[in-house]
Amino acid sequence: MPQDREDAFAWIDAQRERRDRAGLVRRLSPRPADSPLLDLASNDYLGLARHPEVTAAAAAAAHRWGAGSTGSRLVTGSTELHTTLERELAEFCGFEAALVFSSGYAANLAAVSALSGRDALVVSDADNHASLIDGCRLSRAEIAVVPHADPDAVRKALGAAEADAGETTVGDAGKARRRALVVSDAVFSVDGDAAPLAALAGASRRYGAALVVDEAHGLGVLGEGGRGAVHEAGLAGAPDVVVTATLSKSLGSQGGAVLGPARVIEHLVNSARTFIFDTGLNPAAVGAALASLRLLRREPERAARVRTVAMGLYGRLTAAGPAAVRPDASVVSVRAPSPEKAVRWAADCRAAGLMVGCFRPPSVPDGVSRLRLTARADLTEEQVEAAVDVIVRTAPTA
Amino acid sequence: MPQDREDAFAWIDAQRERRDRAGLVRRLSPRPADSPLLDLASNDYLGLARHPEVTAAAAAAAHRWGAGSTGSRLVTGSTELHTTLERELAEFCGFEAALVFSSGYAANLAAVSALSGRDALVVSDADNHASLIDGCRLSRAEIAVVPHADPDAVRKALGAAEADAGETTVGDAGKARRRALVVSDAVFSVDGDAAPLAALAGASRRYGAALVVDEAHGLGVLGEGGRGAVHEAGLAGAPDVVVTATLSKSLGSQGGAVLGPARVIEHLVNSARTFIFDTGLNPAAVGAALASLRLLRREPERAARVRTVAMGLYGRLTAAGPAAVRPDASVVSVRAPSPEKAVRWAADCRAAGLMVGCFRPPSVPDGVSRLRLTARADLTEEQVEAAVDVIVRTAPTA
Repeated sequence: MPQDREDAFAWIDAQRERRDRAGLVRRLSPRPADSPLLDLASNDYLGLARHPEVTAAAAAAAHRWGAGSTGSRLVTGSTELHTTLERELAEFCGFEAALVFSSGYAANLAAVSALSGRDALVVSDADNHASLIDGCRLSRAEIAVVPHADPDAVRKALGAAEADAGETTVGDAGKARRRALVVSDAVFSVDGDAAPLAALAGASRRYGAALVVDEAHGLGVLGEGGRGAVHEAGLAGAPDVVVTATLSKSLGSQGGAVLGPARVIEHLVNSARTFIFDTGLNPAAVGAALASLRLLRREPERAARVRTVAMGLYGRLTAAGPAAVRPDASVVSVRAPSPEKAVRWAADCRAAGLMVGCFRPPSVPDGVSRLRLTARADLTEEQVEAAVDVIVRTAPTA
Repeated sequence: MPQDREDAFAWIDAQRERRDRAGLVRRLSPRPADSPLLDLASNDYLGLARHPEVTAAAAAAAHRWGAGSTGSRLVTGSTELHTTLERELAEFCGFEAALVFSSGYAANLAAVSALSGRDALVVSDADNHASLIDGCRLSRAEIAVVPHADPDAVRKALGAAEADAGETTVGDAGKARRRALVVSDAVFSVDGDAAPLAALAGASRRYGAALVVDEAHGLGVLGEGGRGAVHEAGLAGAPDVVVTATLSKSLGSQGGAVLGPARVIEHLVNSARTFIFDTGLNPAAVGAALASLRLLRREPERAARVRTVAMGLYGRLTAAGPAAVRPDASVVSVRAPSPEKAVRWAADCRAAGLMVGCFRPPSVPDGVSRLRLTARADLTEEQVEAAVDVIVRTAPTA
């Protein structure tokens, strides 16, 4: 008979040492309320997280509706404020209906898993966000990971699946066509490049597949007045297109949403586990997102402004030396020679008053470490100039 | 060459019809800010979601820190307010460290998946919450689902795995022991019964497995001053025990947390996908949870009060007729004859001014529909009496 044993977590120390040797240990560095640092690291693309109208709306919602939603959206967690946000968000982006989740992560888990299933095929871009990948894993579907931004590969994956199905269902006319889903970020988080949405939609339609697009980095930045990349591609409101979005980036709040045909939204209410079994988004976050959305509708130039700032940042930076990826939206990605040098670069920027993102494995799909700079609509020319100056001055040698 | 096809979501209509025929369609019923209904449905166990101190703290945090946290906890999403909440929550529950997530769902996905892995064994109670089950699915570990609240079954599952490992590793002294994790809710959401934690910890330790306990319905209700079931069982701070919790039930806010040894928390910071790739919890929710925690520390009698209310509700109810499960915490479960009758019963209660939870498949592990009543520390004797009166009066015939 075995005796009690100690140290069920001894393996953690071994992993810790490996991580340490590889220069990949992550530490939290909590920020004060009034940081003196210039922020080129957050996803607050429109500069709304601290906008007085938005924080006042958060505060008012907490006072009026309570600090929490108190239950699942299906029990006590749906307030009329949630409904208002869902209606206005759907309307703004050009979809029939919307459903708000406690995070963009939860929205992606819901959309991918509840719209596929064990017998389905999901075709997923190799660089998709972790939450889309986890949605694939939870779906129990067959997953075809295709090369990044490659509509031909998507077409081939869908075609191969159809050919297989054809072989096994010859003479079985009653058998339903296999469910298929194509999944892609609209704008990829790490390199800030946009997906070829029109081509992806074409490929999907040719094979009767649905298309799920994550607008985390597209909403508020791309499309008419920030309506997103899907709207810009003329796909908003299409019967076979579903969009997921976050309320925590351009809208400066927290939460996520799925937008699509009413029957899709109703299906999620009835079957998405991260909707049914999660507490509803807290009223302060709902109120803040709604205020941001209304502000963006009133001041649509904010979306164009963030793109201008991103291009300005990219132009100044590459003119001065460092190689960066030309931004399709608000993220400017700058490659670093190694994880250690990326960390050092970011730390040197910080010491010089500039906060930049530093992405290392496992947060980068290709294993290449980089600085991730984010443009904000409220950055001035002088701030961009100062930021570029610091980044260039602290750049490591390859 | 196939042509464009329509209706990628035709299958949704078929599912919709099946659901309709089975009486299982769910609809949202958003509530107004000032609902006249008596609430026995929410998870606001201590009545803190609308406590003026808590809503004021939410509002103040939004004003001071912004409406959103603006990024991943590893980039800009950690504020000093997050750190304060983590420190005080760990201290209160008796653990070395804590980590706050955007939801309890995300915390459970993180704890189960990051503490197991492809080569691990996870032993999971059959009635565990959806988020723990999804954590198992994401882990890629071998999952042994054991009968509900059955420490013997846990022991057998761990023993069988060890015997298997022994056969395959004879003579391989250098091979690390297989990683194993036992996972259980502290209090089960549907029937409100408590897990046999001491016996589960004994079984886990005998085989060198770690124990993960979800205190979603235990925190604020069980243990000294609401410190939870794990604290009550004398397991708080144990080196092989990890607790997950929600900030959205007793603490009246939103979010989740993992509590445990410092090295476990550091491991999650470095490897938990729902931590690394999610936006940090919004400041209003952090501030509200912190205010609730401090309030509970100052007024520990709130925890005892909710248990008294639950027992009073149970006692009155069963004395008057309906069969209910004796509550171990704040949830009182009342069985209904069918999904349709459960829905009807809940609707009749609502028409009479009482809001109760109505759980049907797939939200119930055993397929049995029930009313789910939740006690709150701020319910008066008169309110409990009135609620029981309505429930009894509207009860369906079997």
